Amino acid sequence: MNFASDNWAGAAPQIVEALGRHAAGFGAAYGASELDAAVTEKFCEIFEREVAVLLVPTGTAANALAITCAMKPGGIAIAHRGAHLVEDECGAAEFLSGGRIEWVDGVGGRIDPVALAGHLQRYDPPFLHHGRAVALSLTQASEAGTVYSLDEIRELAGQARRLGMSVHMDGARFANALVALDASPAQMTWQAGIDLLSFGATKNGCWCAEALVLFDPALRETAEYLRKRSGFLFSKSRFVAAQFEAYFAGGLWLELAAHANAMAGQLRAAISSGKRVRLAWPGQANEVFFVANRETEMKLQQAGARFHEWQPPHEVAAKLAENEAVFRLVASFATSAPEVAAFAALVS
Amino acid sequence: MNFASDNWAGAAPQIVEALGRHAAGFGAAYGASELDAAVTEKFCEIFEREVAVLLVPTGTAANALAITCAMKPGGIAIAHRGAHLVEDECGAAEFLSGGRIEWVDGVGGRIDPVALAGHLQRYDPPFLHHGRAVALSLTQASEAGTVYSLDEIRELAGQARRLGMSVHMDGARFANALVALDASPAQMTWQAGIDLLSFGATKNGCWCAEALVLFDPALRETAEYLRKRSGFLFSKSRFVAAQFEAYFAGGLWLELAAHANAMAGQLRAAISSGKRVRLAWPGQANEVFFVANRETEMKLQQAGARFHEWQPPHEVAAKLAENEAVFRLVASFATSAPEVAAFAALVS
Amino acid sequence: MNFASDNWAGAAPQIVEALGRHAAGFGAAYGASELDAAVTEKFCEIFEREVAVLLVPTGTAANALAITCAMKPGGIAIAHRGAHLVEDECGAAEFLSGGRIEWVDGVGGRIDPVALAGHLQRYDPPFLHHGRAVALSLTQASEAGTVYSLDEIRELAGQARRLGMSVHMDGARFANALVALDASPAQMTWQAGIDLLSFGATKNGCWCAEALVLFDPALRETAEYLRKRSGFLFSKSRFVAAQFEAYFAGGLWLELAAHANAMAGQLRAAISSGKRVRLAWPGQANEVFFVANRETEMKLQQAGARFHEWQPPHEVAAKLAENEAVFRLVASFATSAPEVAAFAALVS
Amino acid sequence: MNFASDNWAGAAPQIVEALGRHAAGFGAAYGASELDAAVTEKFCEIFEREVAVLLVPTGTAANALAITCAMKPGGIAIAHRGAHLVEDECGAAEFLSGGRIEWVDGVGGRIDPVALAGHLQRYDPPFLHHGRAVALSLTQASEAGTVYSLDEIRELAGQARRLGMSVHMDGARFANALVALDASPAQMTWQAGIDLLSFGATKNGCWCAEALVLFDPALRETAEYLRKRSGFLFSKSRFVAAQFEAYFAGGLWLELAAHANAMAGQLRAAISSGKRVRLAWPGQANEVFFVANRETEMKLQQAGARFHEWQPPHEVAAKLAENEAVFRLVASFATSAPEVAAFAALVS
Repeated sequence: MNFASDNWAGAAPQIVEALGRHAAGFGAAYGASELDAAVTEKFCEIFEREVAVLLVPTGTAANALAITCAMKPGGIAIAHRGAHLVEDECGAAEFLSGGRIEWVDGVGGRIDPVALAGHLQRYDPPFLHHGRAVALSLTQASEAGTVYSLDEIRELAGQARRLGMSVHMDGARFANALVALDASPAQMTWQAGIDLLSFGATKNGCWCAEALVLFDPALRETAEYLRKRSGFLFSKSRFVAAQFEAYFAGGLWLELAAHANAMAGQLRAAISSGKRVRLAWPGQANEVFFVANRETEMKLQQAGARFHEWQPPHEVAAKLAENEAVFRLVASFATSAPEVAAFAALVS
Repeated sequence: MNFASDNWAGAAPQIVEALGRHAAGFGAAYGASELDAAVTEKFCEIFEREVAVLLVPTGTAANALAITCAMKPGGIAIAHRGAHLVEDECGAAEFLSGGRIEWVDGVGGRIDPVALAGHLQRYDPPFLHHGRAVALSLTQASEAGTVYSLDEIRELAGQARRLGMSVHMDGARFANALVALDASPAQMTWQAGIDLLSFGATKNGCWCAEALVLFDPALRETAEYLRKRSGFLFSKSRFVAAQFEAYFAGGLWLELAAHANAMAGQLRAAISSGKRVRLAWPGQANEVFFVANRETEMKLQQAGARFHEWQPPHEVAAKLAENEAVFRLVASFATSAPEVAAFAALVS
Repeated sequence: MNFASDNWAGAAPQIVEALGRHAAGFGAAYGASELDAAVTEKFCEIFEREVAVLLVPTGTAANALAITCAMKPGGIAIAHRGAHLVEDECGAAEFLSGGRIEWVDGVGGRIDPVALAGHLQRYDPPFLHHGRAVALSLTQASEAGTVYSLDEIRELAGQARRLGMSVHMDGARFANALVALDASPAQMTWQAGIDLLSFGATKNGCWCAEALVLFDPALRETAEYLRKRSGFLFSKSRFVAAQFEAYFAGGLWLELAAHANAMAGQLRAAISSGKRVRLAWPGQANEVFFVANRETEMKLQQAGARFHEWQPPHEVAAKLAENEAVFRLVASFATSAPEVAAFAALVS
Repeated sequence: MNFASDNWAGAAPQIVEALGRHAAGFGAAYGASELDAAVTEKFCEIFEREVAVLLVPTGTAANALAITCAMKPGGIAIAHRGAHLVEDECGAAEFLSGGRIEWVDGVGGRIDPVALAGHLQRYDPPFLHHGRAVALSLTQASEAGTVYSLDEIRELAGQARRLGMSVHMDGARFANALVALDASPAQMTWQAGIDLLSFGATKNGCWCAEALVLFDPALRETAEYLRKRSGFLFSKSRFVAAQFEAYFAGGLWLELAAHANAMAGQLRAAISSGKRVRLAWPGQANEVFFVANRETEMKLQQAGARFHEWQPPHEVAAKLAENEAVFRLVASFATSAPEVAAFAALVS
């Protein structure tokens, strides 16, 4: 019953197999191999248009590079207070871009459109001393296990674009959101106003496969220099490409995400019907947040369930009883139905 | 006959096997797994002392982090003009450290002690307007396929340490140098005055295994923040650890390097006795540099030999005939004796 | 009736006279002149202890250098949402320090101790992914024309120091606060827990006289390198020193600030007793904020009063009538009693 | 006999007078005053075209901003080894631009065109790993007291422009060079291929008057954000403008420079005809370099001559006798004929 995180899981067998299949022989280094090119083609096919694809080592690298692509001197990028690039990346986006990150609130890990509009007023028109708003970052699926609808993405992206800002999507759990929305990659990104995408596959069954996807291929050259001078360019890049090859083959990526989401759905159902716990808020992707008191938490952990406590947003914290806290369960490709059933039994 | 680069090679079977062996199950993310801890222990054993080990995605990342660990405001790091961090890392060390890189010359890719002493005079005593010398970086094995002797390392490191500078070793080809010198890791590093080491395994049979090794473990906390805020911290770090586990097991790393060096030695011998080509300079590690005219180059390439032209240093360029150029052959764990024999036949 | 800003004023006659007095002759450049040394001595005398003093071109430079002195990799500095370094310095502190600025709220431009305590919980104990809290910045007098009491400074600084953070005071209007509190420079700074001070004199009658004051002189060397490599070291530094010489002579600085505060006090009294306007909030220093409707604003401007609209904090904005806005008046050494009387007549 | 540096001199009476004249009254802050606008107009007139003008605190600030305007990710700026931004600015250009500075040699402080052509080969065509050459910086007058001819500027700038690089002129001693060449400001800058100019007036009789001049006004917005976020934007900017007003009025700037150059010329003549000393190399601007042995140096210093030793370039150092060194004399607007005559008598 390990629900600690999807990055505590290992690698799916197909991914491992692909690494082995490409281990022999020689291939051009630094992203110039045939396999790298084939994977870029695959991204273009999936997104139904020409895109530039830069393989990078981590989601933090993808996020920070994306923000840097959009950055200008005195620039400000805006994200949700709970966004990974705000809360969990140790200032990487600021450090690498040289700009500022500001945040807006919104329940369920999603930026509130009214709050965004209010925040953007300060930067419209731009005023030298304030700095200028250059990028909006949306996390899809959000850190709270929720997803933006296509309409919500369009609305938020539209606000940003009217001010000439670029719109970034942190898709560390892109596949989980896609499956939850039953949308196409194109619909959830450039067709809704996204310019830059952190495309994560590591949490969904790869061991290290992250990409920065640029919907404006004219940014490619700049992005390649940014990647190289930041130390993010793999020499044996084709082994990341190999993971993506297997990830996309036969729709594996969507299968793995659908499995994770289904497992999360079963966890949600079990919690909703349980007596000792309750859902902290609803969700659609592979993360589940629940409220329990400390005794229940201890019993669950003693029974072998592995999960983390989660610092809740104000509106949730205000409704907790004194002895209660919020906890997070994460399902992944590696989560098994028996584990979920075991957990369900514990909370029933 | 692919001698293009050791990073064009794939991954050794033992490395691939280790990845598969650890693919299942769960492990703590971000370097906190048991496997990560075991690999750190192994590094301590190999270096015969406590060291801090930070796994990172690329050699450029390791070099830039090392320089940043040593950096101070207004600081200057000094390396050989041909060092990878000067010539081939797109300014990463400057960008990430905020400091300056200066270079000194020396034949065979090695810093000349007299040139270094002359250069350091400018910074002794420090003068605010000049900036201050904070680090010396030595590449072992050098980009020219040569190695510093232990005495040479001690001499250069000693000069730097007398000025309070830190000494970094870029060990992208650490194992090749170690085998060439028949020295222990401790002798070639901290016992000779090295403070910070970029320990590379990618070129020697891994697909992605680089580490920053700190001989002063008190730097660990700072280095961990630097790594995280630079986007270099792998979530599924244990898959890099898995590669290192296999790399060290049973001395695999030294075997692979010994093989590569031996293949390079045979290439050197073939070139030395060949009529159409000559060695550009002697060497000890797994890179071989030779002079040929354009007709010979074309014949070799047409016969299937894959290698790159190399921009020679001034002292070598001055002795080339008009139609001649310098070319580089790199041997790796994946280089086979028949390939080497085939090349030897072509140049004989 | 020019109340636009204290940096719209010119230079006090004594300051101008000092520049002329030192114009002839020669003096060592880059802060090494006798006059520079004498001014440092004067700072030590005023603060009743040894301090390091770095003359810099702007308040933004002083603030950013101060934050940089306290910065560590992954570091976070915390200030009031309305602080100059958050709202009006175009991201300089982030850019120059490489770290992040976060903000907390509090009415009247002052950080609320409870809000600060809540915010700091996130960083206690430090967690690599979050970054670490390294500095607290207090603005004295605040951007809202208010001042922290000595007890309030001690309370906030104490919270920060318990976490090992440095405490910075943005004293762009240091003298105005000092006069308002009737405190000594020592009491308002290091005796209350301040480590780093931006000491501003430009707004109070100099034309360009800003200093970074370090209460830990051991930081001097680092700060000097930071200043030089940021382009903040004046060559003819002694002309800034000359301004400070005159500024301190005979207590001129306190006289000028007392005058500005008194003028602001008269403006407050006039507004309080006026029928068409009301104070937006109380204040103690040389800035006055009032509420008026658009017709009144227009009449005032047409009558020759020069002032700016001010974006009010939420708690004030919520109480405005539809046609109302908040406006700022700034008094300075150059504000005359007849001007104030004329304005008083307009609003009575 | 103070020949230590032109930045040891004070301020010319006309400059002091202008500061006093503008001390009263109010003016818009941050460069928005009428006086700021008038000075920009004056720059346009002097350069015979529209230019953008940004007043900044120091020559280092102007140089670093100029390089940053031209910088791209992975970018490299090239200057003479002895350039101020290479040797005497503590890494400011690297720090603020995030890029690298490389240097080329050339006798007399001027870049050798053949050396530049050789150096640029490495970056033509650009190669990701090397970084890319984005700017060339020429110092006019050079740090060695020499000046580039218009033809030389055109030749060097032309090489850079053919690679798409921007060309910067460090004009800390712009007026001295202009007078030495008897050229117009337009001829010596944009008509010869200069894109960005650090226009220095501090060394020539102002106390703090430096400007970044952009010959492509489209860069203005970016440069203004760069200046602000670097802490270089003066609040009471009009006091720098006041200095420039007086500096240009009636050709004062050229008079002051002509005087300094003439004084330097007399020093050169005295040294040339002296028995105990000799010129280290010829020169045209206001710096004079001479060779003397240690006894002569001591006698000169004891007689009251104030000057600094200078680290000579290799080609000069090689010709020194054992007891000899190179020394620098700098003449300025404040250098008097009697002082020069006194020095001449000492060396005759």
